[in-house]
Amino acid sequence: MRLKEYLSERRARVDAALEDLLPADEAGGAVLEAMRYSVFAGGKRIRPILCLAGAEAMGGDPERVMFCACALEMIHTYSLIHDDLPAMDDDELRRGVPTNHTVYGEGMALLAGDGLLTQASVLLTDPEQTQGLDPARVLAAAQVVMRAAGYLGMVGGQAVDLASENLAPDLATVQYMHAMKTGALLTASVHSGAILAGGDEGQVGRLMRYGRRIGLAFQIADDLLDLEGDTATLGKQVGADQARGKMTYPAVVGASQARAMGQDLVDQAAAIAQDLGPGAEPLVLIARYIMERTY
Amino acid sequence: MRLKEYLSERRARVDAALEDLLPADEAGGAVLEAMRYSVFAGGKRIRPILCLAGAEAMGGDPERVMFCACALEMIHTYSLIHDDLPAMDDDELRRGVPTNHTVYGEGMALLAGDGLLTQASVLLTDPEQTQGLDPARVLAAAQVVMRAAGYLGMVGGQAVDLASENLAPDLATVQYMHAMKTGALLTASVHSGAILAGGDEGQVGRLMRYGRRIGLAFQIADDLLDLEGDTATLGKQVGADQARGKMTYPAVVGASQARAMGQDLVDQAAAIAQDLGPGAEPLVLIARYIMERTY
Repeated sequence: MRLKEYLSERRARVDAALEDLLPADEAGGAVLEAMRYSVFAGGKRIRPILCLAGAEAMGGDPERVMFCACALEMIHTYSLIHDDLPAMDDDELRRGVPTNHTVYGEGMALLAGDGLLTQASVLLTDPEQTQGLDPARVLAAAQVVMRAAGYLGMVGGQAVDLASENLAPDLATVQYMHAMKTGALLTASVHSGAILAGGDEGQVGRLMRYGRRIGLAFQIADDLLDLEGDTATLGKQVGADQARGKMTYPAVVGASQARAMGQDLVDQAAAIAQDLGPGAEPLVLIARYIMERTY
Repeated sequence: MRLKEYLSERRARVDAALEDLLPADEAGGAVLEAMRYSVFAGGKRIRPILCLAGAEAMGGDPERVMFCACALEMIHTYSLIHDDLPAMDDDELRRGVPTNHTVYGEGMALLAGDGLLTQASVLLTDPEQTQGLDPARVLAAAQVVMRAAGYLGMVGGQAVDLASENLAPDLATVQYMHAMKTGALLTASVHSGAILAGGDEGQVGRLMRYGRRIGLAFQIADDLLDLEGDTATLGKQVGADQARGKMTYPAVVGASQARAMGQDLVDQAAAIAQDLGPGAEPLVLIARYIMERTY
């Protein structure tokens, strides 16, 4: 299996599903236009792909969990829109294009984020999308996703991030913050896919352990890329974290130690996925790929 | 039945439930503190009370739908926090106390709103809270609430509001905007309570018609109070809508015509509720009370 082809094929399917689930519609007015602008601004769709792969690892049909995959991408996109606002990181460039508020104004960007978060919740409980699935599992998956997005997950991580700018670097804080800010939703991506696909408790638990490891590794890789990448490849300003006095892994332990930590986490994750059998092969490859981007 | 005692007893039960469902917790950090600040800043809890009354009108136990009632209040509170931000209405006073961003800063207020919206979604699908309820009805109620909150409901109405400031007053726009901005969530309040309490299609449909009428009437009453009330009673700046060139009912049709429209709507709503029998008595009284505030 070639990871590159797998990712690009999955990404195309996710893009098509997002177009189906968030179609242009005059009734949606300006806010729907702003929501769609950021959703279709070219993300890698890594959370949806993890959700589909989580279902596949349980022997399930990835198409059956596509609604959840798309909800995860909407949540991710909302968090980027709000994070880019002047009151937060005040970024002008994201995924290579102007940020939402740069195009639509702050008020509309705020509402676009609110609209995407709400629509994610609508999708997770949509009777049409969830037809034929066990309602108890539908509710459980919605719980996993929304708890990961909330004040004990992503929102809480953003708040710690906001409060910790220009504080002295500290490994415990950076790990805690990243586990909440990005790790929780990445973990929820594989976890929710596995629940919806009918995984048993042991299998779902293994996927959670996988998810926690790649969640942290993703953030370490992102921090390294912010430090060492270039703006053209990343589609956003590099060095921005450093300029802002953000608490990152490289700032706390240095780049080479951060790389070693990331590599260790993806090795562990790959080993966990390997034990799940051939259906989990994409998860093995995805884990290995995370740190490759940084070399 | 005395409405005043009924409302104050229900409000106390809702306040206690909100305290249970959003308890102070060190793990929640600064963002949970900011979330709780606005939730416990003294709202009238009209949406939760409508949800409980919707259940009661179907012969259900209002306590069984308390989780949904509290989710509605969290959604309402998040919308106030975001609406008060400088990028939106830029208000400094709400419910008689400083607005969230005035106390916690814009970034944290943004996150507090995000956290409340997310937590509402968590609550609506919480296995502990929904235990013993029909999962299909739990999903249906979550749909009703979150769709009403989304880009075809409240968020969409806010966007129309944002785009229509200082445009020429126009009755069709103001009705459409208010139906989305405040009407949708008020309607969803009685509607979701009725669904969770096991109402049949006809009864639930009647409650929706009731909800749409009081939703519009509430907004008309609020517009009149903004025009004619005083800051001490309202706990927020009066005349703010006018100063901002907001499209309101009084601005479009004049105060006396607006009052007549509101009265007609609450009369219709009271008649619909009356037909539902003695369990719907609170809904009759609530409908009548809406316009009384404005005389």
